[in-house]
Amino acid sequence: MRVLGIDPGLRNLGWGVIDVDGSRLSHVANGICKSSGTDMAARLMSLHVQLTEIFRQFAPQTAAVEQTFVNKDGAGTLKLGQARGIALLVPAQFGLAVGEYAPNTVKKTVVGVGHATKDQIAHMVRVQLPGITLAGADAADALAIAICHAHHARMPALARRVGA
Amino acid sequence: MRVLGIDPGLRNLGWGVIDVDGSRLSHVANGICKSSGTDMAARLMSLHVQLTEIFRQFAPQTAAVEQTFVNKDGAGTLKLGQARGIALLVPAQFGLAVGEYAPNTVKKTVVGVGHATKDQIAHMVRVQLPGITLAGADAADALAIAICHAHHARMPALARRVGA
Repeated sequence: MRVLGIDPGLRNLGWGVIDVDGSRLSHVANGICKSSGTDMAARLMSLHVQLTEIFRQFAPQTAAVEQTFVNKDGAGTLKLGQARGIALLVPAQFGLAVGEYAPNTVKKTVVGVGHATKDQIAHMVRVQLPGITLAGADAADALAIAICHAHHARMPALARRVGA
Repeated sequence: MRVLGIDPGLRNLGWGVIDVDGSRLSHVANGICKSSGTDMAARLMSLHVQLTEIFRQFAPQTAAVEQTFVNKDGAGTLKLGQARGIALLVPAQFGLAVGEYAPNTVKKTVVGVGHATKDQIAHMVRVQLPGITLAGADAADALAIAICHAHHARMPALARRVGA
């Protein structure tokens, strides 16, 4: 099973693709989509184009998106929501159901604790996908989401209990 | 010039199309896209499909979206942001620049005051587009956004001064 994880963001949208064979994970690709353009509509379309190309190139069979941390910064939440809309739309356009996981669920699954740092996440991603070159912290987060989704897809009862 | 206005929302996304010939406005169509589906990705795709069909059917030449009111309800803002992402994406996919107007700018342009009620907006939309049947309050808001955009497109200097 090929799994795509997405860490949504307007400026930097991290993505990571892994193959899952039983309990074996292998890295396929990871990267960061950067939105360009002067207005919001153009930036969102740029994300849509890049993410669509990733789906075409790597043909994931299932996808997962991190549940966005909602904070008191309304304007920031709105921007993130807009980027997240694109991150949810593209998998649906390719006919895939989209898993959603809270950041703490991802951390707990990949690192073992719910309050892991970015460095700990990148470290555990490297341990589970040896030899990998990470495009950046957002790509590491995206791979962690893919690993989390692979784990919960193997254990659907657990996914229902702790998942999004 | 054919103008499409969009009042973004996840459950109800209002839209309205008008034709503008100098200072003459005429109504083309209005309606409300309702998102269906059990998960967020499916709901966003349902909005994307409906909005794409509206662009295909009515071929607007310019579009405008209301700037979303950002409040303290982070989860609500995030949902609205996701729907707004779709509302901004589709015009961009059809090659259109997207105007963005704050609710107060729309109200001030259409009703004359920045704190107009929904009823006042619907009333003034009916006055400016005689004989119209409104699909609902969200469709009236969308037509008000289209009227606002038409007004500012005629007066670009004003648009730069008061616009989004």
